[in-house]
Amino acid sequence: MKNNNYCIIMSGGIGNRFWPYSNEKTPKQFLDFFGTGRSLLQSTFDRFNKIIPKENIFVVTNDGYAELTREQLPELSEDQILLEPIRRNTAPCIAYASFRIQAINPEANIIVTPSDHLILKSDQFIADINKGLDFVQHHDVLLTLGVKPSRPETSYGYIQVCVDKVEGVHKVKTFTEKPNRELAQAFVDSGEFVWNSGIFIWSLKSILNAFKTHLPDISNKFNDGAHLFNTEKEKEFIDSSFPFCPNISIDYGVLEKADNVFVIISSFGWSDLDSWTSLHDASQRDESNNVNLNNDVIYIESSNNVVATSSKKLVVIQGLEDYIIAESDKTLLICKKKEEHRIKHFMTDARFKFGDEF
Amino acid sequence: MKNNNYCIIMSGGIGNRFWPYSNEKTPKQFLDFFGTGRSLLQSTFDRFNKIIPKENIFVVTNDGYAELTREQLPELSEDQILLEPIRRNTAPCIAYASFRIQAINPEANIIVTPSDHLILKSDQFIADINKGLDFVQHHDVLLTLGVKPSRPETSYGYIQVCVDKVEGVHKVKTFTEKPNRELAQAFVDSGEFVWNSGIFIWSLKSILNAFKTHLPDISNKFNDGAHLFNTEKEKEFIDSSFPFCPNISIDYGVLEKADNVFVIISSFGWSDLDSWTSLHDASQRDESNNVNLNNDVIYIESSNNVVATSSKKLVVIQGLEDYIIAESDKTLLICKKKEEHRIKHFMTDARFKFGDEF
Repeated sequence: MKNNNYCIIMSGGIGNRFWPYSNEKTPKQFLDFFGTGRSLLQSTFDRFNKIIPKENIFVVTNDGYAELTREQLPELSEDQILLEPIRRNTAPCIAYASFRIQAINPEANIIVTPSDHLILKSDQFIADINKGLDFVQHHDVLLTLGVKPSRPETSYGYIQVCVDKVEGVHKVKTFTEKPNRELAQAFVDSGEFVWNSGIFIWSLKSILNAFKTHLPDISNKFNDGAHLFNTEKEKEFIDSSFPFCPNISIDYGVLEKADNVFVIISSFGWSDLDSWTSLHDASQRDESNNVNLNNDVIYIESSNNVVATSSKKLVVIQGLEDYIIAESDKTLLICKKKEEHRIKHFMTDARFKFGDEF
Repeated sequence: MKNNNYCIIMSGGIGNRFWPYSNEKTPKQFLDFFGTGRSLLQSTFDRFNKIIPKENIFVVTNDGYAELTREQLPELSEDQILLEPIRRNTAPCIAYASFRIQAINPEANIIVTPSDHLILKSDQFIADINKGLDFVQHHDVLLTLGVKPSRPETSYGYIQVCVDKVEGVHKVKTFTEKPNRELAQAFVDSGEFVWNSGIFIWSLKSILNAFKTHLPDISNKFNDGAHLFNTEKEKEFIDSSFPFCPNISIDYGVLEKADNVFVIISSFGWSDLDSWTSLHDASQRDESNNVNLNNDVIYIESSNNVVATSSKKLVVIQGLEDYIIAESDKTLLICKKKEEHRIKHFMTDARFKFGDEF
């Protein structure tokens, strides 16, 4: 029997937040952050491959990461790696993969997922995904996985949830991107809000309809070439049309505007790993609350640090508290954790002074 | 005309104080600490080669550093590199080289110098050395270069100087090793004390007499084999006799006991570079008092640090004050400067846990 369930893994991020541990050459999703032997992308693939046949899994990434993706996921055939000729946020990325899937199976149900998140409770996660796939088969909805907030995090998007449920699934009332501290605290206290995980489930028909309604630019452009998807002319079409798509996220472009957005409230141990602090929170810590990735560290009078050296290096740290120590083969960064929002600026400054190879 | 002036460069140190920037494999004297293109050993050779013919310069080092020494000083012939089969402080080292020189030129005057000190005012230094060589030709003395103290340093040896002078050279009253802070301050305030640079000048006859009187063990042992020095049997003799020499410094074994010790009071910009702090004091600093060796560093809200990475690596540091950041290809150390006396302990601990290769 034909399997109608598909998965789109978005894997085009450039990972500058973890500079210099990750960088444009090897973004975060391609790194084995937790020393498990599998990169975040590979772990994402493994997670979904438990319920989705591998031939129904597509990775959308940037042209420049084609080789890395092939190396890390030899399970995929060449035509399962969709290459964006230019960076264009999540809406064009999802539209591209959706039109490809339309050409293969118009009855598809689709999971859309980032490639670089951490999921701790895999079984719980899979149960929620299965529940979602089941739900979207029978309802014309855009479904997102919401995570019960454990703290007033200001770097996440929040979803306000209606009390009423359909088959255990809540309708969404509002979206709020990155609230300030007070607002985030109020959200958490209210009990009405969940974190937006950025993991979505919907039927192909629902998402194509949503594009048609809310992002007609993208919808029209790809509809013009709909007959070219899944043919040898697809690449030429994408290379010429994709750069003209608006640079817009699926959240802003579709979900915040649509009135059929629903959410499954989950608690599967999630982190979007979008900052050193969230990485620190999500990782196994020693008795002094230090986190180290992939290397041997001796801590002396040191606590609350994150140490990430890409090479196999012994690190000895004395008298440091709340610092990030991150290294690539070319660069070493030592920075207070609470100043991590400035790292991109440090990187830009370093490259301006010493060259783009850093 | 035969040149009677000789130089013994002591180059057997293992450099653990600068671990991991330096280590047993590449001790401090073999490193280009100041990015001049020449290691400390090479700089020492260059300094003396201005006034001593290269064939009169001997390097005494450990067996294990023969190859490194040959590489760094191709100017020396094989028999100018004297190899200790085992580590035995400075007295046996100096005795070995002195007996070799005796076999070549009994009329020799000898400069003895560490290989890993910093001399900033080379011209002043050479003038003092020449003055010393001149003095020891006509006096049976053991001459040391003393440095006017600029601060109450507690890691140096101090020499108390008699007021009376002979040809501008002072007689020594007492030696004091590493005084505590109060004593060091009193020494500096008194104006009677100078730092012991560990650079000595004497005639071969005077030092051999001093060994005979104060270290008869060493003197007798080497006298038994005196006819073997500078022959093909020297190595065999040294390998069998040297390990039985007492482990004793020339300061403790000879200078503190002899009554013919004199000192030239100098100010040639000297540092023995025996600690990160002394290195920091001796080095060129940026406007925030940071020192970096051989690499590109961006400091942000950071002051009074020393950064020493052995590879060509960009280092970005935010929010650090008074730290040492030292790196080898295998190890990274971050440590408060005021805790540097514990670095040897950190090293021992690291090796115990992770192996001797670090």
